[in-house]
Amino acid sequence: MKMNLEDYTALPQTVREKHPLIHCITNYVTAKDVANVVLACGGSPIMADHPAEVKEMTRLSDCLLLNIGTPRESTLDVMIAAGMEANRLGIPVILDPVGIGSTPFRTELIQELVKKVVPTVVRGNASEIKTLLSSVTRQLINESSNNTSHLPRGVDASGEDQITEDNVSSFIEAANLLSHITSAVVVMTGATDIIAYHDQIRLVKNGCPEMSQITGSGCMLDGFLAAYAASSAKVFEAMTIATAIYGLCGENADKKTKECGGGSGSFHRYFMDEINLSSHSLKKGGLRIELP
Amino acid sequence: MKMNLEDYTALPQTVREKHPLIHCITNYVTAKDVANVVLACGGSPIMADHPAEVKEMTRLSDCLLLNIGTPRESTLDVMIAAGMEANRLGIPVILDPVGIGSTPFRTELIQELVKKVVPTVVRGNASEIKTLLSSVTRQLINESSNNTSHLPRGVDASGEDQITEDNVSSFIEAANLLSHITSAVVVMTGATDIIAYHDQIRLVKNGCPEMSQITGSGCMLDGFLAAYAASSAKVFEAMTIATAIYGLCGENADKKTKECGGGSGSFHRYFMDEINLSSHSLKKGGLRIELP
Amino acid sequence: MKMNLEDYTALPQTVREKHPLIHCITNYVTAKDVANVVLACGGSPIMADHPAEVKEMTRLSDCLLLNIGTPRESTLDVMIAAGMEANRLGIPVILDPVGIGSTPFRTELIQELVKKVVPTVVRGNASEIKTLLSSVTRQLINESSNNTSHLPRGVDASGEDQITEDNVSSFIEAANLLSHITSAVVVMTGATDIIAYHDQIRLVKNGCPEMSQITGSGCMLDGFLAAYAASSAKVFEAMTIATAIYGLCGENADKKTKECGGGSGSFHRYFMDEINLSSHSLKKGGLRIELP
Repeated sequence: MKMNLEDYTALPQTVREKHPLIHCITNYVTAKDVANVVLACGGSPIMADHPAEVKEMTRLSDCLLLNIGTPRESTLDVMIAAGMEANRLGIPVILDPVGIGSTPFRTELIQELVKKVVPTVVRGNASEIKTLLSSVTRQLINESSNNTSHLPRGVDASGEDQITEDNVSSFIEAANLLSHITSAVVVMTGATDIIAYHDQIRLVKNGCPEMSQITGSGCMLDGFLAAYAASSAKVFEAMTIATAIYGLCGENADKKTKECGGGSGSFHRYFMDEINLSSHSLKKGGLRIELP
Repeated sequence: MKMNLEDYTALPQTVREKHPLIHCITNYVTAKDVANVVLACGGSPIMADHPAEVKEMTRLSDCLLLNIGTPRESTLDVMIAAGMEANRLGIPVILDPVGIGSTPFRTELIQELVKKVVPTVVRGNASEIKTLLSSVTRQLINESSNNTSHLPRGVDASGEDQITEDNVSSFIEAANLLSHITSAVVVMTGATDIIAYHDQIRLVKNGCPEMSQITGSGCMLDGFLAAYAASSAKVFEAMTIATAIYGLCGENADKKTKECGGGSGSFHRYFMDEINLSSHSLKKGGLRIELP
Repeated sequence: MKMNLEDYTALPQTVREKHPLIHCITNYVTAKDVANVVLACGGSPIMADHPAEVKEMTRLSDCLLLNIGTPRESTLDVMIAAGMEANRLGIPVILDPVGIGSTPFRTELIQELVKKVVPTVVRGNASEIKTLLSSVTRQLINESSNNTSHLPRGVDASGEDQITEDNVSSFIEAANLLSHITSAVVVMTGATDIIAYHDQIRLVKNGCPEMSQITGSGCMLDGFLAAYAASSAKVFEAMTIATAIYGLCGENADKKTKECGGGSGSFHRYFMDEINLSSHSLKKGGLRIELP
């Protein structure tokens, strides 16, 4: 069964008209691409992470993006200050727990962060979402053990955590459980993307493997989701549509890349093109959103 | 009335021959694009912002670029140290007060900076230039009030500060006044760019809206201006020509983008191409430099 | 005389199959491009430089890349911690002494680093390799003098240090001597690249001037070498082949760029494409690897 897309065909245009300001506290590796994605879909990015100004920047913004890709000394304090201000003012918060589980430091950083800041949306790959779930669950039941059944390798989706037809139900369960515990819309990305919010589940079948051949395709999705979250009161629906549009942009970029015999350099260009032109994609169809 | 371009047709080639070293203390979001613009027009970039080496790096350089896009703890000290060294040695300083007025922190950072460092060129959008003007004016008349008639939103040019045919005279006045107070050539960029220096005014009508669809088009212009400022003793004329060439590169890139049905990804590529090929642009005409 | 390439035609495919995780402690200017090169050739990059997690990240990795392009306060400590952990575990370390000699700070940073960390590969331009050699030599003979016969200008290869047919033997000597002192494979890049390891020398004649027209072509090579060093026990041979493939990718990208009348923006795209497609390049020939 498909979502009723008719109700959302105007959403990309709404993003452009609202021109939301997205305060991004993100990593230095992909910051430029995140900013360009926000611009390409109609938003306006502001990258600012100095402790002396983050609260004011968040206050000016329509959405706050927290991505812990390359944390530095002040990152936890800065994210807590900005996140609490966003919570206080009702500004949506997108949280990307990049590489949680790779090192104890990252896991603890996110644990401390979600004690103080309520995310509106959590976006991660299957490893990250499962690790975050086990991390917050352990906190809830006051378990002192530090054993994780789960150790991701690096920040990329690892083979063991590829979402397939066969194992999708266990991933849905994890995403849904995390949404119950955190009250956030959970966007778990992989070959199939899972969007979960309080027992509402959608599977997004758009996207292609070439998207993971460029760095930052996850971080860039964060920026895309932020612009959409800032532009719709129905966050679950907006995240679902946005994830599907983003995946479709990847598919279209891959077609163009293959037509010209290109590789990941060409893909990057065409992907940004597609995101920039994506206000027209929705009308053309191609979105594959399913119930589980 | 047009500037006598005949005197400056050799300038792009001069930049290539001089191959100036540009010391860039800039933000981490667009640093790569700034470096690539400097290379593309014939210069050589060095990005270095560690307190222990900035003075030496400035000393080796032909121009210093200060852009406060993503300040960190050491930014003010580092920029003052490098800027004072540049002033001492007569090395031109390009200052971009990114987002001044967005937060008190940024405004104060720039206020402290311009107390110690004399910029050769100030480059900003209309919001930034007007905010800097009101900031330094307040300092001059020792006004204790912190009221600003003017609060920019984020770091992008905001709607209220679009330069149009109707309101251009008030923006010219602001740019010119700032040039008198700071002794800098002021480059105010927008739909029309205003170059002002001690009652000399030029309007540059080159450029296109697509340039603001990629992040860092302002920061990249800073790098372009730095290479030109390092290569000509006539800074006002060099900044005028450089701003016009840069805008023309944008127009040409936009044409190529539209021809191939592309978006902001394609635009970025073609824009860098045009900057790289811009030593030939001047001869072909297309520069639109006017008196007010 | 050519290397027996037949033994290495499978190497690019081996890199893809091994999918090595590369822990990159690198500069913020070109970090994205480095990550994209690692992905493009079949590896997986992780950028992480927080003192609290670098050791764990290195432990998870197949190779460690240390590039001092934009050092910050914690850089030396972080690199020593990660580097010593890599040494302890037998994980290869690629060291790029960016801009050594430009400032005393950089020279001392590298001096302290190589006291504690044994690099597997040192990659730099002629200026950097010669400065590093004179720096470690001075340490060895406990010379107190700080005179350097050699002062590079910025981080780009300077004119005086262009490797030509006439002066190649002095550069070979420097690279070879440094390999003896450090026990590292030395990759000195320029118009001709010199690979030296304990009196084994190869000259790589691939590459083109356009590669130095984009920022980070050296940093990106570091990432490429890291993926290859992680995938072969024969490091000298792997570095030689990888340097040649990388140069050939540049040549191919330049051809495509010229065919479409492009500049450095197009070159960047095609170069990344070529690196991504480079598992096929080796079979097609075109590698120019020679004995001196």
